[in-house]
This record gives sequence, structure tokens and C-alpha cells, in this order.
Amino acid sequence: MKALVTGGAGLVGSSIIPRLLARGADVLCVDNLTLGTRKHLEEFSSHPAFRFEEWDVSARDWHKKLGGGARFDLCVHLAANSDISLGHRHPEMDHQRTLATTFETLMAARELKIPNFIFASTSAVYGANPAFPTPENAGDMHPVSLYGAGKLASEAFISSFVENYGISAWVFRFGNVVGRRLTHGVIYDFTARLRKDPAELVVLGNGGQTKTYVDVEDLTSGILHGFEKSPAGRTHAERFQVLNLSTEGTTSVREIAEETVKVVTGGKAKIRYGTEQTGWVGDVRKTSLEVSRIQKLGWKPAHDSTGSVFKAIRDYNEWSR
Amino acid sequence: MKALVTGGAGLVGSSIIPRLLARGADVLCVDNLTLGTRKHLEEFSSHPAFRFEEWDVSARDWHKKLGGGARFDLCVHLAANSDISLGHRHPEMDHQRTLATTFETLMAARELKIPNFIFASTSAVYGANPAFPTPENAGDMHPVSLYGAGKLASEAFISSFVENYGISAWVFRFGNVVGRRLTHGVIYDFTARLRKDPAELVVLGNGGQTKTYVDVEDLTSGILHGFEKSPAGRTHAERFQVLNLSTEGTTSVREIAEETVKVVTGGKAKIRYGTEQTGWVGDVRKTSLEVSRIQKLGWKPAHDSTGSVFKAIRDYNEWSR
Repeated sequence: MKALVTGGAGLVGSSIIPRLLARGADVLCVDNLTLGTRKHLEEFSSHPAFRFEEWDVSARDWHKKLGGGARFDLCVHLAANSDISLGHRHPEMDHQRTLATTFETLMAARELKIPNFIFASTSAVYGANPAFPTPENAGDMHPVSLYGAGKLASEAFISSFVENYGISAWVFRFGNVVGRRLTHGVIYDFTARLRKDPAELVVLGNGGQTKTYVDVEDLTSGILHGFEKSPAGRTHAERFQVLNLSTEGTTSVREIAEETVKVVTGGKAKIRYGTEQTGWVGDVRKTSLEVSRIQKLGWKPAHDSTGSVFKAIRDYNEWSR
Repeated sequence: MKALVTGGAGLVGSSIIPRLLARGADVLCVDNLTLGTRKHLEEFSSHPAFRFEEWDVSARDWHKKLGGGARFDLCVHLAANSDISLGHRHPEMDHQRTLATTFETLMAARELKIPNFIFASTSAVYGANPAFPTPENAGDMHPVSLYGAGKLASEAFISSFVENYGISAWVFRFGNVVGRRLTHGVIYDFTARLRKDPAELVVLGNGGQTKTYVDVEDLTSGILHGFEKSPAGRTHAERFQVLNLSTEGTTSVREIAEETVKVVTGGKAKIRYGTEQTGWVGDVRKTSLEVSRIQKLGWKPAHDSTGSVFKAIRDYNEWSR
């Protein structure tokens, strides 16, 4: 199998690439290293079946760099601005880095006739949804973050490419993904702040936000599980498959703050909470995903939400020293 | 009231602008005249409160041409590639002309602090939806046309701009809009083909496709009715309102073909149907919209689906001679 992985130098890419290599695949990883880093690729960068190119997949016709004769069996499209809180000040960022990356990668899949397309979507596509926990077929999908908008927009174009150009797609809507190679997010932020000021941790929002978290190793095992156990059929619905991918439980910002203080400062920092219900504009206060669809395919995560978070706090603290 | 109307030189724009002028509004109409024409603006182009600019609203930062001091109370965003069947051969068209037009107009609304945003969406956002007639809160919104994808992507970004930048939005998902100033579509195509060959009409598909049609005058009265009778509230759900806008009934391609043959050739042409269930890739075979939400606001169309179609066939035949 030949696999093209966009945005492969990030948290998710650096976990799924070794799994693809272990399955005997040739992997071409493309990343512009805006959020991803070469350090994330170190463990497999010398693997003979691995190749890396520093390209920006939001550029019009970037796929021409691949050459017209390039053949891939699978595209794993991860490239995006994954830092949700940035969108508020820079709305053009999610238009370019979250949506245009997808559109131009779809153009690559169309041009090179790549039959299988795996997409990293997000619970943020649901917005503050009335259905809770939220199932894949929820209505009223009204994203409140630019990031969620860029991902839902991406899904819409993927759906139309499936109908028009014979591509089959697997859309995985992730919970909050955590692991040692974090590039942003709440654990990343808390750790950085505590290293700067080990006496006090200022938390955006009142700490009551609760979300579903998933360990990146569970997540990437789930992506390949879903892809392999649920092959494409003939109809649009069988060739455009949407799967929530997370743990069942949730974890509060308060729990994350307390554990990060414990791990990074030995419990010495005082935590000061804000009064807002959300951490920033576009934040969703509570997320929980209905995950029975992926579970029915036989996938079970090794860690629950809080287990994933606590493990990531420890692992990231080691990794980022 | 000052209103900015994008894509105002098309079928819908040329019907809504006189209604805005009649309400005493100043109207700036912007159109790149790709599908729209100056002829559509003739009836009100000399109105003192009307101004036209030939600009492309998909261009990055086009709003800078308006000047930083420009003030509008309302943006009616209609600009799009509205010819669905074109998308299959030119997927980049709907990325640019259906989505980027929306994104850059949202950037204008954000920059100029335009508080109210009316958006022309479409039944195509629902794809071939399991819910039929399809309500606004349907799940599994998986567009099959590039056009539907561009419109759903637009809705997603509008939703996020509502949350982030204090804009209130009214999203109207139109049925198939018909009227005398057609720029494309089934009546337009059939009429053109019959004028070229009055002896025979070749129909794409088996004629069994049935869709919901709405007269453009009913539609634009409905848009302003929905906007005026359902003011924005405080929550996201009250500031991002989605309303299906069409008639309840449906009309088949067979009925349209027969009536167009009658009107254009006096019934002389022979109709030859294809064998496919849809007319082109990305076409949806049957559409029907659940319209109780707009009806509850007191809107009632003057024409049903087939009445709208038959009127448009006659009116377009006169208008386009």
C-alpha cells in the first residue's frame, strides 16, 4: 500500500505513520511545519519506506509537485490549523489552513485517482449541539468556532467529491486529542504557564468546561480500525462514512488544571479561575460524543477521557523538558 | 436602511432589490456579471437610491473598495455560481464562486460591522437526504453537488461569524427558483434547445426527477417576510436562523418538458428521454422541503410548485425572445 499523509508532522500524524509503516505501507508525509515539527518524525524518519516533503497543501495545485505518475492507495488528510482559539483573531486562517488544505488535497485525490480518503474531522463541527452526547446524524450542526466551520466545510466538499469523482471517504470526528507530542491546547498552555510562573496558574473560564478527550494512540488505532473494518460500499452513504472517534467520558478543565499543577509544580501552584463559562470565543462549554458506531466495529480505547488526559500531562511534561 | 446586495444582477437579486427600494432603502448592488446581466437591473437602475458596482466579491479584501467609512444595516448575500451542473467539470468553481464569495463577504460584514446578514442557501445542502420532505434540522447533510457543498460550507462559516463577530444571520434554503429572468436551469435549457431544434427535445435523465420549485417573486417576498417577522435574539440559535423557503409541492422534469414544448413550439416537438435517474452527476433525483417553519411566520406563496414552473416557462419565453 502507498499512503499520502498530509499534516503528518503533528500529534496525530506522528502516531498514525508508524502504524502505516508497520503494516508494510510506503508513506509520503507532507507538512509545511507550521504546527508540526521534524522532531515528531525522528522515530521513523530513517525508515526506508518513509519520505518527507515540506510542502504547503493549501497552495493551489500543490499536487503537481507529486508528478502525474504518482500512485497512492490511500490519502490520510490531517493538515489543518488545529489550534481552535486562534481563529477568532484570524478568521482567514481557518479558511486557508483548515478548508483550502482539504480542497486542494481533494483536487490531488481527484487528479491522481486516489481511491481512499481518510479525514480528520472534529466534534467542533456540531457546535453547541442540542443532542448530547452527540451522534453522527445530529441535526442543527452550527459550528461556533472558525475551526469547526472549516472542518464542516471540508466535510461538505469531501461528500461532493465522493459523489462526483469515485473517491471513498472515512470522516472521523475526533474528541480532543491528547498525547506527549502536543503542539497546542489546554495541557500545552497550562504546562507552559506553570513553567513560567510555578506559583500561580491563571485559567481562562471558570474551569467548568467539560469535554471528551482521547489518547492519540487510541485515536490512530481507531482510525485504521474504522477504515479496515468498514470497507466502502456502492452507494454514497456507503462511500462517505462518518464516525465519531473518542472515549465515552468527559473531563473538566478544573481536573486538568489540578493534575497539571501536581505534575509540573508538585502541587505548589495556586489556581486562579476566571468567571466566564467558556475559555474563549468559539469555545464549546461541554462536548460529549455518542461513539456506539465505532464501538460496534469492535474498537475499544485503552484509556478513558480522564485517563487519557492524566497520561498526556505526564508524558508531555517528560517529552517537552 | 442601507443594504448591500451581492450577486444582485441575477434572478433573485433583480426581484429583491425593487422590494428593498420600495421600503425606502439605499441599495448598493455588487455583481461581477458572470451569470447576472445589466439587463436585469434596467427597471430600477436610474432609481436615486440605487447604485451598481461591477466587482468580484470572491476577491480577497474586495470590501476595501467600499471604503472604511461605509455603513450598511443589512447585507443580502446572493453571489454564487448558481449553475449546479457546472461543478462536476470545474470543482474549483464552487470553491471560488460559491464559497469564497461568502467568506470574503463575511469578512466585509465583520470589517464594516454590518449587523444583519441574509444568505441565499439551497435545498442542495441536504444532499439525497433520508428525511423527506426535508426539515431544517435534518441530520446527515451530505451534499452530492459541488454547489451544495459550497453552500453548506458557506453556512458553516456564517454560523461561526455569528458567534465570533456579533453578526445576526438569516439562512434561507431555497427550492429551485424560477422566474422570467432565468440565467440557467431546466427551463432555460429546454427553451434554448427547442429554439435550436423545434422538432425534438432531448432530456437528460428519464424525466422522473421531481423537485420543489418556487416563483422568484414569492421567494423574495418570503426572504423579507422571514427577516422582518423573525428578529434576531441573543443566543446563537436566535441569531443564526435557518429557514427552508419553497412551496410544498413538487414538479417532475416530464411535466416541465411537456409544458415547455407546448409554449415554445406549440406542442410540435417530440420529447426524447434518457434512461438515467438523474440529469447529471451531483443531481438529486427528488427534492421536497418541509416548509412549516416559514409558514408559521405567516408566509404563503401565491403559486404552488407546478404553477411557478408553468408561469416561468411562459414569462421566460416572452422575456428572452
